Amino acid sequence: MHVPDKLQQQISFLIEVDALKQVFRKATLIKDLRAENDAEHSWHLAMMVILLSKYSNDTEIDVLRTVKMALIHDIVEIDAGDTFCYSPHDRDQKTAKEKEAANRIFGSLPDDQAREFRLLWEEFEEMKTSEARFAAAVDRLQPLLLSFNTQGHTWLKYSVTRSQVIDRNQHIEKGSEVLWEYAKQLIDESVQRGYLLDG
Amino acid sequence: MHVPDKLQQQISFLIEVDALKQVFRKATLIKDLRAENDAEHSWHLAMMVILLSKYSNDTEIDVLRTVKMALIHDIVEIDAGDTFCYSPHDRDQKTAKEKEAANRIFGSLPDDQAREFRLLWEEFEEMKTSEARFAAAVDRLQPLLLSFNTQGHTWLKYSVTRSQVIDRNQHIEKGSEVLWEYAKQLIDESVQRGYLLDG
Repeated sequence: MHVPDKLQQQISFLIEVDALKQVFRKATLIKDLRAENDAEHSWHLAMMVILLSKYSNDTEIDVLRTVKMALIHDIVEIDAGDTFCYSPHDRDQKTAKEKEAANRIFGSLPDDQAREFRLLWEEFEEMKTSEARFAAAVDRLQPLLLSFNTQGHTWLKYSVTRSQVIDRNQHIEKGSEVLWEYAKQLIDESVQRGYLLDG
Repeated sequence: MHVPDKLQQQISFLIEVDALKQVFRKATLIKDLRAENDAEHSWHLAMMVILLSKYSNDTEIDVLRTVKMALIHDIVEIDAGDTFCYSPHDRDQKTAKEKEAANRIFGSLPDDQAREFRLLWEEFEEMKTSEARFAAAVDRLQPLLLSFNTQGHTWLKYSVTRSQVIDRNQHIEKGSEVLWEYAKQLIDESVQRGYLLDG
Protein backbone atom coordinates (compact mmCIF):
# COMPACT_ATOMS: atom_id res chain seq x y z
CA MET A 1 0.00 0.00 0.00
CA HIS A 2 1.24 3.43 -0.97
CA VAL A 3 1.56 6.16 1.67
CA PRO A 4 0.52 9.45 -0.01
CA ASP A 5 2.99 12.38 0.04
CA LYS A 6 0.15 14.52 1.34
CA LEU A 7 -0.02 12.36 4.46
CA GLN A 8 3.60 13.13 5.36
CA GLN A 9 2.81 16.85 5.11
CA GLN A 10 -0.21 16.43 7.37
CA ILE A 11 1.74 14.36 9.91
CA SER A 12 4.52 16.99 9.97
CA PHE A 13 1.90 19.62 10.78
CA LEU A 14 0.48 17.41 13.55
CA ILE A 15 3.99 17.00 15.02
CA GLU A 16 4.58 20.75 14.82
CA VAL A 17 1.35 21.69 16.61
CA ASP A 18 2.30 19.45 19.54
CA ALA A 19 4.05 22.67 20.64
CA LEU A 20 0.64 24.22 21.43
CA LYS A 21 0.73 22.13 24.62
CA GLN A 22 3.65 24.27 25.76
CA VAL A 23 2.10 27.71 25.14
CA PHE A 24 1.01 28.76 28.62
CA ARG A 25 -1.76 31.19 29.44
CA LYS A 26 -2.32 33.38 32.49
CA ALA A 27 -5.43 31.39 33.48
CA THR A 28 -4.91 28.49 35.87
CA LEU A 29 -6.63 25.13 36.19
CA ILE A 30 -9.35 24.75 38.80
CA LYS A 31 -8.10 22.00 41.12
CA ASP A 32 -4.40 22.52 40.59
CA LEU A 33 -3.37 26.15 40.16
CA ARG A 34 -0.84 25.53 37.38
CA ALA A 35 -1.07 27.64 34.21
CA GLU A 36 -3.38 26.32 31.53
CA ASN A 37 -1.92 25.74 28.08
CA ASP A 38 -3.46 26.53 24.71
CA ALA A 39 -4.10 22.90 23.70
CA GLU A 40 -6.11 22.20 26.87
CA HIS A 41 -7.90 25.52 26.50
CA SER A 42 -8.81 24.66 22.90
CA TRP A 43 -10.13 21.24 23.96
CA HIS A 44 -12.25 22.93 26.63
CA LEU A 45 -13.69 25.39 24.08
CA ALA A 46 -14.56 22.57 21.70
CA MET A 47 -16.44 20.86 24.56
CA MET A 48 -18.29 24.11 25.24
CA VAL A 49 -19.27 24.49 21.60
CA ILE A 50 -20.67 20.96 21.54
CA LEU A 51 -22.64 21.35 24.77
CA LEU A 52 -23.78 24.96 24.46
CA SER A 53 -24.32 25.60 20.73
CA LYS A 54 -28.11 25.79 21.23
CA TYR A 55 -27.58 29.07 23.12
CA SER A 56 -26.15 30.76 20.04
CA ASN A 57 -28.21 33.80 19.04
CA ASP A 58 -28.48 32.18 15.63
CA THR A 59 -29.83 28.80 16.55
CA GLU A 60 -28.77 27.03 13.38
CA ILE A 61 -24.99 27.32 13.53
CA ASP A 62 -22.67 24.85 11.82
CA VAL A 63 -21.33 23.03 14.88
CA LEU A 64 -18.45 21.30 13.06
CA ARG A 65 -17.14 24.58 11.63
CA THR A 66 -17.43 26.20 15.07
CA VAL A 67 -15.58 23.30 16.71
CA LYS A 68 -12.83 23.57 14.11
CA MET A 69 -12.39 27.27 14.94
CA ALA A 70 -12.18 26.41 18.64
CA LEU A 71 -9.54 23.76 17.95
CA ILE A 72 -7.29 25.87 15.74
CA HIS A 73 -7.85 29.49 16.89
CA ASP A 74 -4.72 29.63 19.07
CA ILE A 75 -2.29 27.70 16.86
CA VAL A 76 -0.72 30.99 15.72
CA GLU A 77 0.46 31.45 19.32
CA ILE A 78 3.04 28.70 18.79
CA ASP A 79 5.06 31.44 17.06
CA ALA A 80 3.41 34.61 18.36
CA GLY A 81 3.02 33.61 22.04
CA ASP A 82 0.04 34.22 24.32
CA THR A 83 -0.95 37.84 25.01
CA PHE A 84 -2.67 38.47 28.35
CA CYS A 85 -5.86 40.32 27.48
CA TYR A 86 -5.72 42.57 30.55
CA SER A 87 -2.14 43.76 29.98
CA PRO A 88 -1.43 46.77 27.77
CA HIS A 89 -0.23 45.50 24.39
CA ASP A 90 0.35 46.75 20.87
CA ARG A 91 -2.63 45.38 18.95
CA ASP A 92 -1.16 46.00 15.49
CA GLN A 93 2.07 44.30 16.39
CA LYS A 94 0.16 41.31 17.83
CA THR A 95 -1.94 41.04 14.64
CA ALA A 96 1.14 41.26 12.41
CA LYS A 97 2.94 38.54 14.36
CA GLU A 98 -0.09 36.28 14.29
CA LYS A 99 -0.57 36.70 10.54
CA GLU A 100 3.03 35.74 9.96
CA ALA A 101 2.52 32.69 12.19
CA ALA A 102 -0.63 31.72 10.27
CA ASN A 103 1.28 31.94 6.99
CA ARG A 104 4.07 29.75 8.24
CA ILE A 105 2.16 27.15 10.25
CA PHE A 106 -1.06 26.72 8.24
CA GLY A 107 1.00 27.19 5.08
CA SER A 108 2.83 23.94 5.76
CA LEU A 109 -0.36 21.91 5.15
CA PRO A 110 -1.49 20.63 1.74
CA ASP A 111 -2.99 23.56 -0.21
CA ASP A 112 -6.67 22.78 0.34
CA GLN A 113 -6.28 22.35 4.10
CA ALA A 114 -3.87 25.30 4.39
CA ARG A 115 -6.54 27.45 2.80
CA GLU A 116 -9.34 26.01 4.95
CA PHE A 117 -7.46 26.60 8.22
CA ARG A 118 -6.31 30.05 7.22
CA LEU A 119 -9.89 31.05 6.33
CA LEU A 120 -11.30 29.54 9.53
CA TRP A 121 -8.73 31.42 11.62
CA GLU A 122 -9.51 34.71 9.83
CA GLU A 123 -13.23 34.09 10.22
CA PHE A 124 -12.74 33.55 13.96
CA GLU A 125 -10.68 36.72 14.29
CA GLU A 126 -13.17 38.87 12.35
CA MET A 127 -16.24 37.67 14.33
CA LYS A 128 -18.62 38.42 11.49
CA THR A 129 -20.33 35.05 11.05
CA SER A 130 -22.63 33.36 13.57
CA GLU A 131 -20.12 30.56 14.03
CA ALA A 132 -17.23 32.95 14.67
CA ARG A 133 -19.28 35.01 17.11
CA PHE A 134 -20.26 31.91 19.04
CA ALA A 135 -16.69 30.53 19.09
CA ALA A 136 -15.47 33.93 20.32
CA ALA A 137 -18.19 33.95 23.01
CA VAL A 138 -17.05 30.63 24.51
CA ASP A 139 -13.41 31.75 24.15
CA ARG A 140 -14.28 34.64 26.51
CA LEU A 141 -16.55 32.68 28.84
CA GLN A 142 -14.10 29.84 29.49
CA PRO A 143 -11.47 31.94 31.35
CA LEU A 144 -14.31 33.53 33.39
CA LEU A 145 -15.29 30.03 34.53
CA LEU A 146 -11.69 29.29 35.51
CA SER A 147 -11.33 32.61 37.34
CA PHE A 148 -14.59 32.26 39.25
CA ASN A 149 -13.82 28.67 40.23
CA THR A 150 -10.32 29.53 41.48
CA GLN A 151 -11.66 32.35 43.68
CA GLY A 152 -10.42 34.96 41.24
CA HIS A 153 -6.83 33.67 41.29
CA THR A 154 -5.63 35.33 38.07
CA TRP A 155 -7.83 38.45 38.46
CA LEU A 156 -6.46 39.17 41.93
CA LYS A 157 -2.88 38.38 40.92
CA TYR A 158 -3.02 41.01 38.15
CA SER A 159 -5.39 43.47 39.94
CA VAL A 160 -8.03 43.13 37.23
CA THR A 161 -11.21 45.21 37.75
CA ARG A 162 -14.87 44.63 36.96
CA SER A 163 -14.91 47.28 34.22
CA GLN A 164 -11.92 45.64 32.50
CA VAL A 165 -13.70 42.28 32.57
CA ILE A 166 -16.92 43.83 31.23
CA ASP A 167 -15.06 45.68 28.44
CA ARG A 168 -13.16 42.60 27.41
CA ASN A 169 -16.07 40.19 27.50
CA GLN A 170 -19.23 42.04 26.55
CA HIS A 171 -19.05 40.85 22.98
CA ILE A 172 -20.09 37.45 24.35
CA GLU A 173 -23.56 38.98 23.87
CA LYS A 174 -23.09 39.08 20.10
CA GLY A 175 -22.63 35.30 20.07
CA SER A 176 -25.10 34.43 22.80
CA GLU A 177 -27.36 36.63 24.88
CA VAL A 178 -27.98 33.74 27.25
CA LEU A 179 -24.27 33.17 27.88
CA TRP A 180 -23.69 36.89 28.38
CA GLU A 181 -26.49 37.00 30.95
CA TYR A 182 -24.81 34.11 32.74
CA ALA A 183 -21.39 35.81 32.50
CA LYS A 184 -22.75 39.02 34.01
CA GLN A 185 -24.13 37.10 36.99
CA LEU A 186 -20.72 35.45 37.42
CA ILE A 187 -18.97 38.84 37.30
CA ASP A 188 -21.36 40.38 39.87
CA GLU A 189 -20.98 37.42 42.17
CA SER A 190 -17.18 37.60 41.78
CA VAL A 191 -17.15 41.24 42.93
CA GLN A 192 -19.44 40.42 45.87
CA ARG A 193 -17.19 37.57 46.96
CA GLY A 194 -14.00 39.62 46.59
CA TYR A 195 -12.65 37.59 43.63
CA LEU A 196 -12.63 40.67 41.38
CA LEU A 197 -11.92 44.33 42.19
CA ASP A 198 -14.89 46.68 41.93
CA GLY A 199 -14.08 49.60 39.66
CA MET B 1 -33.08 37.60 30.47
CA HIS B 2 -33.59 34.23 32.12
CA VAL B 3 -30.66 31.84 32.59
CA PRO B 4 -32.01 28.30 31.99
CA ASP B 5 -31.53 25.67 34.74
CA LYS B 6 -30.13 23.38 32.09
CA LEU B 7 -27.25 25.82 31.53
CA GLN B 8 -26.14 25.54 35.16
CA GLN B 9 -26.01 21.75 34.77
CA GLN B 10 -23.92 22.08 31.60
CA ILE B 11 -21.55 24.59 33.20
CA SER B 12 -21.10 22.30 36.24
CA PHE B 13 -20.11 19.52 33.87
CA LEU B 14 -17.65 21.82 32.07
CA ILE B 15 -16.09 22.76 35.44
CA GLU B 16 -15.87 19.10 36.42
CA VAL B 17 -14.11 18.00 33.22
CA ASP B 18 -11.41 20.62 33.77
CA ALA B 19 -9.90 17.74 35.79
CA LEU B 20 -9.08 15.92 32.51
CA LYS B 21 -6.13 18.33 32.23
CA GLN B 22 -4.66 16.64 35.29
CA VAL B 23 -4.95 13.01 34.14
CA PHE B 24 -1.43 12.22 32.98
CA ARG B 25 -0.47 9.60 30.44
CA LYS B 26 2.77 7.68 29.93
CA ALA B 27 3.41 9.43 26.60
CA THR B 28 5.49 12.60 26.69
CA LEU B 29 5.38 15.76 24.62
CA ILE B 30 7.82 16.10 21.75
CA LYS B 31 9.87 19.19 22.59
CA ASP B 32 9.56 19.03 26.35
CA LEU B 33 9.58 15.52 27.76
CA ARG B 34 6.85 16.11 30.36
CA ALA B 35 3.92 13.68 30.51
CA GLU B 36 1.02 14.47 28.21
CA ASN B 37 -2.42 14.83 29.79
CA ASP B 38 -5.74 13.53 28.52
CA ALA B 39 -7.16 16.95 27.56
CA GLU B 40 -4.17 17.74 25.31
CA HIS B 41 -4.25 14.23 23.90
CA SER B 42 -7.97 14.61 23.10
CA TRP B 43 -7.33 17.96 21.39
CA HIS B 44 -4.60 16.34 19.31
CA LEU B 45 -6.92 13.49 18.27
CA ALA B 46 -9.63 15.94 17.23
CA MET B 47 -7.05 17.72 15.04
CA MET B 48 -6.08 14.37 13.51
CA VAL B 49 -9.71 13.51 12.76
CA ILE B 50 -10.20 16.85 11.02
CA LEU B 51 -7.04 16.58 8.94
CA LEU B 52 -6.98 12.86 8.19
CA SER B 53 -10.65 11.78 7.90
CA LYS B 54 -10.29 11.22 4.15
CA TYR B 55 -8.02 8.24 4.91
CA SER B 56 -10.85 6.41 6.67
CA ASN B 57 -11.60 3.07 5.00
CA ASP B 58 -15.17 4.28 4.75
CA THR B 59 -14.67 7.58 3.00
CA GLU B 60 -17.96 9.13 4.03
CA ILE B 61 -17.65 9.25 7.80
CA ASP B 62 -19.53 11.77 9.94
CA VAL B 63 -16.63 14.03 10.94
CA LEU B 64 -18.49 15.86 13.72
CA ARG B 65 -19.51 12.63 15.43
CA THR B 66 -15.93 11.33 15.12
CA VAL B 67 -14.53 14.58 16.57
CA LYS B 68 -16.98 14.34 19.48
CA MET B 69 -15.74 10.82 20.24
CA ALA B 70 -12.14 12.07 20.17
CA LEU B 71 -13.01 14.91 22.54
CA ILE B 72 -14.88 12.83 25.13
CA HIS B 73 -13.37 9.32 24.88
CA ASP B 74 -11.06 9.74 27.88
CA ILE B 75 -13.37 11.68 30.22
CA VAL B 76 -14.08 8.49 32.17
CA GLU B 77 -10.40 8.53 33.21
CA ILE B 78 -11.12 11.48 35.51
CA ASP B 79 -12.45 8.82 37.90
CA ALA B 80 -10.89 5.64 36.52
CA GLY B 81 -7.36 6.94 35.83
CA ASP B 82 -5.15 6.26 32.82
CA THR B 83 -4.11 2.66 32.16
CA PHE B 84 -0.80 2.20 30.33
CA CYS B 85 -1.61 -0.07 27.42
CA TYR B 86 1.70 -1.97 27.61
CA SER B 87 1.41 -2.80 31.33
CA PRO B 88 -0.42 -5.91 32.48
CA HIS B 89 -3.87 -4.87 33.71
CA ASP B 90 -7.20 -6.43 34.61
CA ARG B 91 -9.38 -5.61 31.62
CA ASP B 92 -12.69 -6.42 33.32
CA GLN B 93 -11.85 -4.27 36.30
CA LYS B 94 -10.84 -1.39 34.02
CA THR B 95 -14.12 -1.68 32.08
CA ALA B 96 -16.19 -1.78 35.27
CA LYS B 97 -14.47 1.30 36.68
CA GLU B 98 -14.90 3.20 33.42
CA LYS B 99 -18.59 2.33 33.18
CA GLU B 100 -19.14 3.61 36.69
CA ALA B 101 -17.27 6.81 35.76
CA ALA B 102 -19.40 7.23 32.62
CA ASN B 103 -22.57 6.86 34.71
CA ARG B 104 -21.45 9.46 37.21
CA ILE B 105 -19.82 12.05 34.92
CA PHE B 106 -21.99 11.90 31.78
CA GLY B 107 -25.00 11.33 34.05
CA SER B 108 -24.58 14.82 35.49
CA LEU B 109 -25.55 16.40 32.13
CA PRO B 110 -29.12 17.20 31.05
CA ASP B 111 -30.82 13.93 29.98
CA ASP B 112 -30.49 14.36 26.20
CA GLN B 113 -26.79 15.22 26.35
CA ALA B 114 -26.08 12.60 29.04
CA ARG B 115 -27.55 10.02 26.69
CA GLU B 116 -25.68 11.37 23.65
CA PHE B 117 -22.27 11.32 25.40
CA ARG B 118 -22.86 7.93 26.97
CA LEU B 119 -23.77 6.45 23.57
CA LEU B 120 -20.80 8.14 21.85
CA TRP B 121 -18.43 6.77 24.47
CA GLU B 122 -19.89 3.25 24.15
CA GLU B 123 -19.71 3.50 20.36
CA PHE B 124 -16.04 4.47 20.59
CA GLU B 125 -15.28 1.58 22.96
CA GLU B 126 -17.09 -0.99 20.80
CA MET B 127 -15.39 0.06 17.54
CA LYS B 128 -18.21 -1.26 15.39
CA THR B 129 -19.08 1.86 13.37
CA SER B 130 -16.85 3.53 10.76
CA GLU B 131 -16.59 6.63 12.96
CA ALA B 132 -15.58 4.66 16.05
CA ARG B 133 -13.02 2.63 14.09
CA PHE B 134 -11.47 5.80 12.70
CA ALA B 135 -11.44 7.56 16.09
CA ALA B 136 -9.80 4.47 17.60
CA ALA B 137 -7.24 4.43 14.76
CA VAL B 138 -6.06 7.99 15.47
CA ASP B 139 -6.14 7.23 19.21
CA ARG B 140 -3.53 4.55 18.52
CA LEU B 141 -1.51 6.46 15.94
CA GLN B 142 -1.08 9.60 18.06
CA PRO B 143 1.11 8.01 20.78
CA LEU B 144 3.18 6.33 18.03
CA LEU B 145 3.90 9.80 16.62
CA LEU B 146 4.94 11.03 20.07
CA SER B 147 7.14 7.98 20.69
CA PHE B 148 8.86 8.17 17.31
CA ASN B 149 9.49 11.90 17.64
CA THR B 150 10.95 11.54 21.14
CA GLN B 151 13.40 8.86 19.97
CA GLY B 152 11.29 6.16 21.62
CA HIS B 153 11.36 7.83 25.05
CA THR B 154 8.37 5.96 26.57
CA TRP B 155 9.01 2.70 24.69
CA LEU B 156 12.59 2.51 25.93
CA LYS B 157 11.66 3.57 29.47
CA TYR B 158 9.19 0.65 29.75
CA SER B 159 11.13 -1.81 27.54
CA VAL B 160 8.31 -2.07 25.03
CA THR B 161 8.91 -4.42 22.08
CA ARG B 162 7.91 -4.32 18.42
CA SER B 163 5.48 -7.21 18.82
CA GLN B 164 3.72 -5.45 21.68
CA VAL B 165 3.35 -2.32 19.56
CA ILE B 166 2.05 -4.35 16.60
CA ASP B 167 -0.43 -6.26 18.80
CA ARG B 168 -1.73 -3.11 20.42
CA ASN B 169 -2.01 -1.04 17.27
CA GLN B 170 -2.87 -3.32 14.40
CA HIS B 171 -6.55 -2.49 14.64
CA ILE B 172 -5.59 0.92 13.15
CA GLU B 173 -6.04 -1.05 9.92
CA LYS B 174 -9.76 -1.48 10.59
CA GLY B 175 -10.20 2.29 10.64
CA SER B 176 -7.68 3.17 7.95
CA GLU B 177 -5.46 0.97 5.82
CA VAL B 178 -3.44 4.03 4.79
CA LEU B 179 -2.73 5.05 8.39
CA TRP B 180 -1.81 1.48 9.33
CA GLU B 181 0.65 1.35 6.41
CA TYR B 182 2.17 4.56 7.70
CA ALA B 183 2.26 3.23 11.28
CA LYS B 184 4.05 0.04 10.18
CA GLN B 185 6.75 2.12 8.46
CA LEU B 186 7.14 4.16 11.65
CA ILE B 187 7.46 0.98 13.74
CA ASP B 188 10.07 -0.54 11.39
CA GLU B 189 12.04 2.69 11.34
CA SER B 190 11.84 2.86 15.16
CA VAL B 191 13.37 -0.60 15.49
CA GLN B 192 16.11 0.27 12.97
CA ARG B 193 16.97 3.43 14.87
CA GLY B 194 16.97 1.73 18.27
CA TYR B 195 13.86 3.55 19.55
CA LEU B 196 11.97 0.29 20.00
CA LEU B 197 13.20 -3.15 21.04
CA ASP B 198 13.07 -5.83 18.36
CA GLY B 199 11.16 -8.85 19.57
